[in-house]
Amino acid sequence: MTTRPGQTTRDTPTAEATALTSRLAVGIDLGGTQVRAALVDDSGRLLARAAARTDIAGRPRAVMRQIEGLFAEVTNGIETRRLAGIGVSAPGPLDSEAGIVLGVPTFPGWVDVPVTAWLGDALNLSVTLENDGVAAAIGEWRFGAGRGLSDFVYVTVSTGIGGGVIADGRVLRGRRRLAGALGHVTTAPEGAACACGNRGCWEAQASGTALGTRARQRAALMPASSLFARGAAIDARLVVEAAREGDALAAQLVAEEAELLGIGIANLLHLFSPEAVVLGGGVSAAFDLLQPGILRTVQARALPPFRGVPVVAAQLGQNSGLVGAACLVLQRD
Amino acid sequence: MTTRPGQTTRDTPTAEATALTSRLAVGIDLGGTQVRAALVDDSGRLLARAAARTDIAGRPRAVMRQIEGLFAEVTNGIETRRLAGIGVSAPGPLDSEAGIVLGVPTFPGWVDVPVTAWLGDALNLSVTLENDGVAAAIGEWRFGAGRGLSDFVYVTVSTGIGGGVIADGRVLRGRRRLAGALGHVTTAPEGAACACGNRGCWEAQASGTALGTRARQRAALMPASSLFARGAAIDARLVVEAAREGDALAAQLVAEEAELLGIGIANLLHLFSPEAVVLGGGVSAAFDLLQPGILRTVQARALPPFRGVPVVAAQLGQNSGLVGAACLVLQRD
Repeated sequence: MTTRPGQTTRDTPTAEATALTSRLAVGIDLGGTQVRAALVDDSGRLLARAAARTDIAGRPRAVMRQIEGLFAEVTNGIETRRLAGIGVSAPGPLDSEAGIVLGVPTFPGWVDVPVTAWLGDALNLSVTLENDGVAAAIGEWRFGAGRGLSDFVYVTVSTGIGGGVIADGRVLRGRRRLAGALGHVTTAPEGAACACGNRGCWEAQASGTALGTRARQRAALMPASSLFARGAAIDARLVVEAAREGDALAAQLVAEEAELLGIGIANLLHLFSPEAVVLGGGVSAAFDLLQPGILRTVQARALPPFRGVPVVAAQLGQNSGLVGAACLVLQRD
Repeated sequence: MTTRPGQTTRDTPTAEATALTSRLAVGIDLGGTQVRAALVDDSGRLLARAAARTDIAGRPRAVMRQIEGLFAEVTNGIETRRLAGIGVSAPGPLDSEAGIVLGVPTFPGWVDVPVTAWLGDALNLSVTLENDGVAAAIGEWRFGAGRGLSDFVYVTVSTGIGGGVIADGRVLRGRRRLAGALGHVTTAPEGAACACGNRGCWEAQASGTALGTRARQRAALMPASSLFARGAAIDARLVVEAAREGDALAAQLVAEEAELLGIGIANLLHLFSPEAVVLGGGVSAAFDLLQPGILRTVQARALPPFRGVPVVAAQLGQNSGLVGAACLVLQRD
């Protein structure tokens, strides 16, 4: 995407959007790069979409104005009374019951931002806020790879690692609705330093960021690799591309990434006993390369009754969170 | 306990047992050392108890006969119609829905043992089978340290590490009711070999058995320690005793144990977001020595919103599982 803050891309609402029978909601996916909006019907279809580059520099108020603009675009021509509400997916930690973003380390000035109150006042609709990992889990549960399951774990692997847990047919919440902070499970006590201050968090070991860091370090010592010349430009995406083109170092890095993901996934199997683990986020674009190594690691590390559990790719791609956010107001769990 | 197989210890049913108002159930706690039975009322009181050393050599049928004998003792003088049923706590893996112990590594010949069918036929009562970690969690939830909480994790640290999870006011079950295999979470990928075949399971790192093994290795190199002379007799209990008596090596081992427990507990906080973590099992006899180190580790490793969560000792001691087993039939979750 090359949109600048304030600019948006958009699709025109289709004829379906005006069908009178379906319930509609607006899903907002607030990310560090983009803020996106969609008009979603109760079959999980995206009837209109709009996106803008997140105006991080403009602080929370500016981003709220962006959301209001995107909302206006995707609901253009739709009567307000047809809208069940607005669901917002945002990075945590947040207080989803109070509708407050508590503080996003990568968003300066985002401390105790009352997102649902601000948007509710501005747009005169009910607004629900949810952790982005949980929102994406709900999207995959209702309309993606987790459809029909009572127990599954959604894991998103991108800049960090996050996710959400569906357990015994319900979204797992826990105290202050903070359950499912998958990325900050320690998988190697003396491992890589994590942004959270701890060492060896699963996120610090196995996120796309961690893969990029490992790749830069290793490529610098390996002139034979096609990655060598890319230097500081090496990131997870480049590693995956190089692996697809047959680069040996890249293939090795991807194999190690699969093992690091597999260790954390085996942990999730033991703790939650899901019927499936669904992998989303940027790194899941390489799911075909990662899956064999993930399954091998699970096979080696899990107790027998957990070994056969499928590990599959998310089906809604980058829209899991957008659809899940809309589900927050379309369907109550 | 010095009882031999077949022998039992017992208390006499009290006057309370014959009160006509309370509902009664029998809880059975099937362990590798002892099989215990109790008559429990709906206030969680143990009205009669009996125990025998588990007849492991006699295989499953012999243990069933032991249970029948213990049942007869604790229900002596009680009309069968007053009994809501029998709850059995047993080591996993087991199929609690089908009532079958699938296979206990430490019990030879225990493969696919239909415990509820056998006992139900023999005793003509409804029988419910539950994983010992989950049963103890339920006991602590109903009548112990977890009373009134919607979210808590019970961890038992003894020969192995097990436990159970109460999440959003319900027992967390998952696929095939196998959720909560806490002991087999990898906390150190290259760590100690686990009985399950994996490396670095929490149980392999931090169980009482693991503490004993570490202590024997370290004491052998440390003639200044009071443990040195104990050689192969060193176990977790001895380490704790020596630490209480001021032995420096023992104190160091206990501090390391606290850190290893803290790593796993921090993981549980991130995943389940409990309101408390309750520690039971043999090692929890040293809870006063372990708690400061556990809390220090949690403080260092947990994200801020999880840091203040209490880590407390189980309140029902060795009876958590016995009471929890009875709760299986007295109260449905």
